Amino acid sequence: MPHIHLPEHLPGITGLLEYRLDTALPIRELTQLLLRGDSSLSEGERELIATLISTRNKTAFCTAAHTSAAEMLLGDGTLVEQVKQNYETAPVSEKMKALLHIAALVQKSGKAVTPDAVERAKNAGATDREIHDTVLIAALFCLYNKYVDGLATALPADESYYSLLGKRITEKGYMRPPGGYPPPS
Amino acid sequence: MPHIHLPEHLPGITGLLEYRLDTALPIRELTQLLLRGDSSLSEGERELIATLISTRNKTAFCTAAHTSAAEMLLGDGTLVEQVKQNYETAPVSEKMKALLHIAALVQKSGKAVTPDAVERAKNAGATDREIHDTVLIAALFCLYNKYVDGLATALPADESYYSLLGKRITEKGYMRPPGGYPPPS
Repeated sequence: MPHIHLPEHLPGITGLLEYRLDTALPIRELTQLLLRGDSSLSEGERELIATLISTRNKTAFCTAAHTSAAEMLLGDGTLVEQVKQNYETAPVSEKMKALLHIAALVQKSGKAVTPDAVERAKNAGATDREIHDTVLIAALFCLYNKYVDGLATALPADESYYSLLGKRITEKGYMRPPGGYPPPS
Repeated sequence: MPHIHLPEHLPGITGLLEYRLDTALPIRELTQLLLRGDSSLSEGERELIATLISTRNKTAFCTAAHTSAAEMLLGDGTLVEQVKQNYETAPVSEKMKALLHIAALVQKSGKAVTPDAVERAKNAGATDREIHDTVLIAALFCLYNKYVDGLATALPADESYYSLLGKRITEKGYMRPPGGYPPPS
């Protein structure tokens, strides 16, 4: 049961973003810019970072939602699973491995990001902007995971919810649906 | 030395917020709403939460900046130091102790926030909104700390910088100064 009163038909982050609409707006805008805005990283690659962080933080709702989005964007569920298990042996580029490694370090602590980890990414062709965005996406998903778990939000009743949510954030992005969410059916 | 090229005269978060102005805007807006917007928690109490999180994450820049702001807002440097050392024995209300405890748990993990910790806060008079905001402020400062440390931002050359920054965020808030920052003198 959530620690505070939240709309019962809106699980995970969705109820929190309706609970306080004013703070939800910049959270949504930041996510839209980082995960869907202009970038030399693909939307699928950026969703992989979100998925890895949520997996490491063991936040079930965020892990399932972003796994679903990453699978849709990359067209490869096996790849996403391999990254979650061990990104070093997953079939992604050396640059992506190095960026996922930086993200994994950020999940532990900002101080865990070593000059060696950054040099590895730069040697694999990562730009300053890609390194910056990787760190900020990782930090943002730590915020989301702490927000979602810290208030003990509910999980959806049905696993099929995640493919619907994955489809929505893949096709429509992270801003609030016009008019908000439909009431429970 | 920072992991990416940042303006040398802007230490800590300030250089990062100038590095990517588009993502900086919602980060600033979220902070302004949570720390300076309408709330039944005082600005000083909210800065105490920011200070406690930054202290626990050992992020020197954020700890010093928010310590300075909390001291100015509460008019009591000893109190801020006592909260950083041990909020349970610091001279703050039982409600504030319970909220600081929730924040300290969020710093570890969202999953660390127990029903007992929330019940303690509610028994001490905390509202759902105060509990929500405490969790979100704690999560936001984990984002800031990971962002600032994850890119190895520089510390200011002079400790007096923090009282100037504390004065600015106390008097002007968290939005970007009009016209940005002055060039290095």
